[in-house]
Amino acid sequence: MNFLEERIIKDGKVKPNNVLKVDSFLNHQMDISLMEEIGREFRRRFSDKQITKVLTIEASGIGIACFVAKEFGVPMVFAKKSHSINIDSEVYIAQVESFTHKNINNIVVSKQFITAEDRVLIIDDFLANGCALQGLIGITKSAGATVEGIGIVIEKGFQIGGQIIRNLGIQLESLAIVDAMDAETGTVTFREQ
Amino acid sequence: MNFLEERIIKDGKVKPNNVLKVDSFLNHQMDISLMEEIGREFRRRFSDKQITKVLTIEASGIGIACFVAKEFGVPMVFAKKSHSINIDSEVYIAQVESFTHKNINNIVVSKQFITAEDRVLIIDDFLANGCALQGLIGITKSAGATVEGIGIVIEKGFQIGGQIIRNLGIQLESLAIVDAMDAETGTVTFREQ
Repeated sequence: MNFLEERIIKDGKVKPNNVLKVDSFLNHQMDISLMEEIGREFRRRFSDKQITKVLTIEASGIGIACFVAKEFGVPMVFAKKSHSINIDSEVYIAQVESFTHKNINNIVVSKQFITAEDRVLIIDDFLANGCALQGLIGITKSAGATVEGIGIVIEKGFQIGGQIIRNLGIQLESLAIVDAMDAETGTVTFREQ
Repeated sequence: MNFLEERIIKDGKVKPNNVLKVDSFLNHQMDISLMEEIGREFRRRFSDKQITKVLTIEASGIGIACFVAKEFGVPMVFAKKSHSINIDSEVYIAQVESFTHKNINNIVVSKQFITAEDRVLIIDDFLANGCALQGLIGITKSAGATVEGIGIVIEKGFQIGGQIIRNLGIQLESLAIVDAMDAETGTVTFREQ
């Protein structure tokens, strides 16, 4: 087990309906030492890539993406969720369906901050159905920029997102892939990587 | 001028209706070196305080709060905006009015992550009317914890928030206080500190 899988076993909580709560260290309270270690690990896994920008989506991706960007010495950009119907022409836009909230959000990135020269590393905390990632990939492509890779902290391996992204031929690195969870026993089964 | 005021002059954009756009380095694209410098500066300004936790609110406060928490060697907690009417008993809750979006949001923090022993440093990117800060102060007090101080990157000195917070007797440190802006000339006037 790697450092993240160990932490999930130690502090993660399995809830019914395949919910994995990691809010004590990842997405509500954040353990900064762990964030730094995650940053270093993604730097290592994408060490052959000339990254110019790290891209994520608000809110819980921001902290992780900050420490990844720090390791690469590049700026971080976060896509904003927009409830506004009037989107101006100065932004790239994608539609993202949320299964949690059962609605469709626009996510937007200002055209200033992703350009055709950019080599983008996309970072997020969770990958499940992959809708948010597809939105970020779409925005990167709209800018004419290159998706150099995607770094995910926890992938739900029993949902479709990882397969969709890998089928696109993009290097996807998930620090932990959860293949099964059992709320009764509290056990988490990780995929061997 | 300090490093932040210099950066605002260099890269900030003054828009009509007292809008100061700093999205190229602070709240959409983030300059990580600047974030680190902000973290070190707040560490210096609150160096006499025994901080146990850094508290902020999603989304744009998260990146800044991460680097402040790193300097203090403590966890960072971010309050979540909740659209849900059904809030469970496991969270502290405050209501925050948004003048931008003209609505009232609940913000919530899990009771696990702020306890009576905590000495909290509250961090945010902007201070205008102070509603978000008052929500975070309320949540900290609900937990029986102590607000040791508040660190703000940019305070709009011509709005009421800073005065309200200072009247509470809390140490409020704003790295830049904007007393006036002129959209026609693009000038920003900082308060001498």
